[in-house]
Amino acid sequence: MGAREIGLPDRVVGEGLPESVTIWEVGPRDGLQNEGAIVPVDVKLEFLDRLADAGGTVLEATSFVHPKWVPQLADAEELLARLTKRPGVAYPVLVPNERGLDRALRAGVEHIAIFASATETFARKNLNSSLDEQFAMFDPVVARARAEGLRVRGYVSMCFGDPWEGPVAREQVVGVAKRLLDLGCDQLSLGDTIGVATPGQVTALIGAFDRVDRLAVHFHDTYGQALANTYAALLAGVRTVDSSAGGLGGCPYAESATGNLATEDLVWMLDGLGIAHGVDLDKLCDTSAWMAERLGRPSPSRVVRALRG
Amino acid sequence: MGAREIGLPDRVVGEGLPESVTIWEVGPRDGLQNEGAIVPVDVKLEFLDRLADAGGTVLEATSFVHPKWVPQLADAEELLARLTKRPGVAYPVLVPNERGLDRALRAGVEHIAIFASATETFARKNLNSSLDEQFAMFDPVVARARAEGLRVRGYVSMCFGDPWEGPVAREQVVGVAKRLLDLGCDQLSLGDTIGVATPGQVTALIGAFDRVDRLAVHFHDTYGQALANTYAALLAGVRTVDSSAGGLGGCPYAESATGNLATEDLVWMLDGLGIAHGVDLDKLCDTSAWMAERLGRPSPSRVVRALRG
Repeated sequence: MGAREIGLPDRVVGEGLPESVTIWEVGPRDGLQNEGAIVPVDVKLEFLDRLADAGGTVLEATSFVHPKWVPQLADAEELLARLTKRPGVAYPVLVPNERGLDRALRAGVEHIAIFASATETFARKNLNSSLDEQFAMFDPVVARARAEGLRVRGYVSMCFGDPWEGPVAREQVVGVAKRLLDLGCDQLSLGDTIGVATPGQVTALIGAFDRVDRLAVHFHDTYGQALANTYAALLAGVRTVDSSAGGLGGCPYAESATGNLATEDLVWMLDGLGIAHGVDLDKLCDTSAWMAERLGRPSPSRVVRALRG
Repeated sequence: MGAREIGLPDRVVGEGLPESVTIWEVGPRDGLQNEGAIVPVDVKLEFLDRLADAGGTVLEATSFVHPKWVPQLADAEELLARLTKRPGVAYPVLVPNERGLDRALRAGVEHIAIFASATETFARKNLNSSLDEQFAMFDPVVARARAEGLRVRGYVSMCFGDPWEGPVAREQVVGVAKRLLDLGCDQLSLGDTIGVATPGQVTALIGAFDRVDRLAVHFHDTYGQALANTYAALLAGVRTVDSSAGGLGGCPYAESATGNLATEDLVWMLDGLGIAHGVDLDKLCDTSAWMAERLGRPSPSRVVRALRG
């Protein structure tokens, strides 16, 4: 059944909302990295092609984190060597450190992302560093990337709650964000890594920044809040939203569904709000249903389950 | 794991949001009516007791629709005869027509709900009547109920999209709503029966009413929009929200997950927004996990899966 055949109400352009939004598709990287199965490179390449066919303009393609930590993406070099890049589509890749940047540069990458923590404890747990050491580590990565003409996104994780530290102060997040911008990042993605945030916290955090034009948001749907938080972020002026095709990265049967916001659920909302984004919902649902078959389990996206279940 | 032990951010009271909200719990009626399994009356009674223990103040208990149509709730008389009502808790029941009202009055019910359609086609499909016939049918029901001192809620279904008619005009919904208020309903629940709405449409529909104090909202999560729509409704001034404990009524494995908004996911958002509602999330999750065991399948609520999965 097509999305247009089910009695959709007329679009209503929401007050204070933008005419267009950039969807930053994280399924191929953040999604597949958090799936139990290791997907063959041929499937990943077809996935990226299908996402571009569906109108995706930013497809985070893979990661140069060491394969020891992320075996799901150990084929990054082969993937990028065989990828046919589409005009008008960006294929950023995650780069953890200078060694990762070397690999990315050799692979001809034009756009990278680094993954920083807003909290001391998560920096210690994830990067085995203090916050100061985190910035010292990223400084030469960003400087060299910028010198090579690359665009650099900075992920800021644990922006709302931290499983070890509890509530994260907005000043702490803004401070970390400012240091990443000072290093040379051109965009920051504010992440609710454990999915605990609610819309008032989103509004307040975004309101604590002087400018919103460099901000993106990255919500996890662990407690079902991701789309409401995204709506709050749009109302607060954010124009780039991260999401994962089919909700990849969160198993619907897992004990804790810690997945990303599903791109289809986001697209449904943006379509209803009359906000342009370029993605064709039917093609995207076909792609996610196809990937769900490859993974041998249904998609966590409610839209995909409703339209392709 | 308790909800308070997972790194929750501080509550942020949202601008333009209320200090408190009434959660209208529909799980025992709308939830169980849409489950494949028929739940024994003893389990239903324990369910209602547990929901009251968890702090629920409005528990829609059952329905006097003919058992031929809703065999899941054929035990309405026995349920109400055996129910120990708690002080301060309302137990509304659905009443389809005068015969249903007779049964409800004999059972000592103090609060009823009627189920109307916003569209001609759904009135025909669901009630086998035109819209005019719908009001003619409900007129004596509401009049007699009011004369007996009962409170009367009017559900308005298909308020956004209709699977046969497509988009539903706001004037149409407001017109139906006005006629229900004129009949004597003291509250209306605006329902997105097929789950297609997005927040801009919610804001616009609520804004089309002169007064919002008699409005409640009832969202289905078919396309993942229910909580974002609820947030929009709260921003528009609505103070009563329908939801279903554990997301009852929407099977997570069904082809189309047409379930109600899960009460736990709503509570998570309200807690984060600092909006009082009286429900204890941990007790509610325990209740929904217990009911999921009775039904032999996991809860569709993301909060329940995350905290009790």
